[in-house]
Amino acid sequence: MQIGKTIDELKVGEEASFTKTITEVDIAMFAAITGDFNPVHTNEIYAQKTHFGKRIAHGGIAAGLVAPILGMMLPGPGTIALEVRNKFLAPVYPGNTITCTGVVQEKDEERNIATIYFTLNNENSVKVMECWAKVMPPKKVS
Amino acid sequence: MQIGKTIDELKVGEEASFTKTITEVDIAMFAAITGDFNPVHTNEIYAQKTHFGKRIAHGGIAAGLVAPILGMMLPGPGTIALEVRNKFLAPVYPGNTITCTGVVQEKDEERNIATIYFTLNNENSVKVMECWAKVMPPKKVS
Amino acid sequence: MQIGKTIDELKVGEEASFTKTITEVDIAMFAAITGDFNPVHTNEIYAQKTHFGKRIAHGGIAAGLVAPILGMMLPGPGTIALEVRNKFLAPVYPGNTITCTGVVQEKDEERNIATIYFTLNNENSVKVMECWAKVMPPKKVS
Amino acid sequence: MQIGKTIDELKVGEEASFTKTITEVDIAMFAAITGDFNPVHTNEIYAQKTHFGKRIAHGGIAAGLVAPILGMMLPGPGTIALEVRNKFLAPVYPGNTITCTGVVQEKDEERNIATIYFTLNNENSVKVMECWAKVMPPKKVS
Repeated sequence: MQIGKTIDELKVGEEASFTKTITEVDIAMFAAITGDFNPVHTNEIYAQKTHFGKRIAHGGIAAGLVAPILGMMLPGPGTIALEVRNKFLAPVYPGNTITCTGVVQEKDEERNIATIYFTLNNENSVKVMECWAKVMPPKKVS
Repeated sequence: MQIGKTIDELKVGEEASFTKTITEVDIAMFAAITGDFNPVHTNEIYAQKTHFGKRIAHGGIAAGLVAPILGMMLPGPGTIALEVRNKFLAPVYPGNTITCTGVVQEKDEERNIATIYFTLNNENSVKVMECWAKVMPPKKVS
Repeated sequence: MQIGKTIDELKVGEEASFTKTITEVDIAMFAAITGDFNPVHTNEIYAQKTHFGKRIAHGGIAAGLVAPILGMMLPGPGTIALEVRNKFLAPVYPGNTITCTGVVQEKDEERNIATIYFTLNNENSVKVMECWAKVMPPKKVS
Repeated sequence: MQIGKTIDELKVGEEASFTKTITEVDIAMFAAITGDFNPVHTNEIYAQKTHFGKRIAHGGIAAGLVAPILGMMLPGPGTIALEVRNKFLAPVYPGNTITCTGVVQEKDEERNIATIYFTLNNENSVKVMECWAKVMPPKKVS
């Protein structure tokens, strides 16, 4: 069975990243998943009157970009997320390309808990989000 | 312009909730948005060998159910999310019906910041997640 | 340029039909298009307590099955829909296979208007909807 | 169980509205739901040669905006749609922001039937559609 890195194998300072362009399709699908039709996401005329100037993507879309890192790379398959904390720093517009980079910040081998710290930047190096995830890495299958 | 409740109008203890059944489609769409193809979400054979026993929904799907509450109800349109903290307590399987209930926990009128506390329960009253969101409610258009 | 049948070419009594299975994906996408998260479509526990017994598809999903007939077959490309009237007769559940059959009911050559009458049946021959569409067939490109 | 307004509670003249920007994604999803690949919706080159000048949204997309009003607001959950009549008055292009406003036009308390009349306007106040919906509002759970 495919497993990710165990707490032993994870190194503090180790990094992984994932980049994706956020599109209209992401907004439509996130609205479909969540039922969030907040006009700042789905009503262009309303959004133009806000200080954002146009529609923005749901916060959960950028926040979701930590998922492929935790679940596929660092630590990878078998990881269990216990807690995430997201700070939203700048809006994400459809068309922005977001790079999410995670780094192992600390690990507690006894309790099998690691903290991965993420920064999310757009294509102009504006930090749009940061995130701390406390996870249990997979255990070695004996 | 349609706005939600201002910090003045929000009452500590005030509640709103939203319920939705999580389906296969939500898993497919969340994977499409985020690129998270962790086998525990998308590989049934792999998932059967984990202690979950079958595929589970991405954590971000349930976490996303706070969005329609913050953006459409409590406080509603014009709200800016500053920070969210999610604790994942139990798995969500496709077919589970999740009720997300938010309650205004505290508010700081001077800084215009409110904390909304959310509990997410499945149809069997198992708490699957809890979440704290620090938000700036909309300001009255003068 | 590809055009459908002109009013001259259409025959009263002429038929065309289209069949499709309605799935969860259709419900998720229709909710995404319209913002309709009525619990009878998206909350299984709620829906079980209604007289439907489980979630039903949005009425607009079955109603949409007249579109491929009008726009691709009868009359076909170039048709302009002026008016449709839909009667909802029985619920459509995810998993139902709906056959939509249109027949040219009358035509007014002078005003270039045809009425197509549709019946929509599920796989058990239960009529779930009927529809009348008043359309302007395409004109011959000279 | 969450229910909408009963026939007693509905007031003739009472209004509700919903606004959404129509995007490319809506066209792709409506085509996916219905199989309507009429070139005026999905073939830009064809559409440029029509008098519309570019691709237009399917009529069923705008028509679908009555659904969140009937099912979530007026009358709301528990409503059963009996019949809808849609008049298509002007094309909807991707990028248009459509406001759908429903008003209770008449009600027949004995038969528990209400008629809601809808107008749909784009951001330039052009009426693109009107709709009459005959519905059975929910009954009080005793």
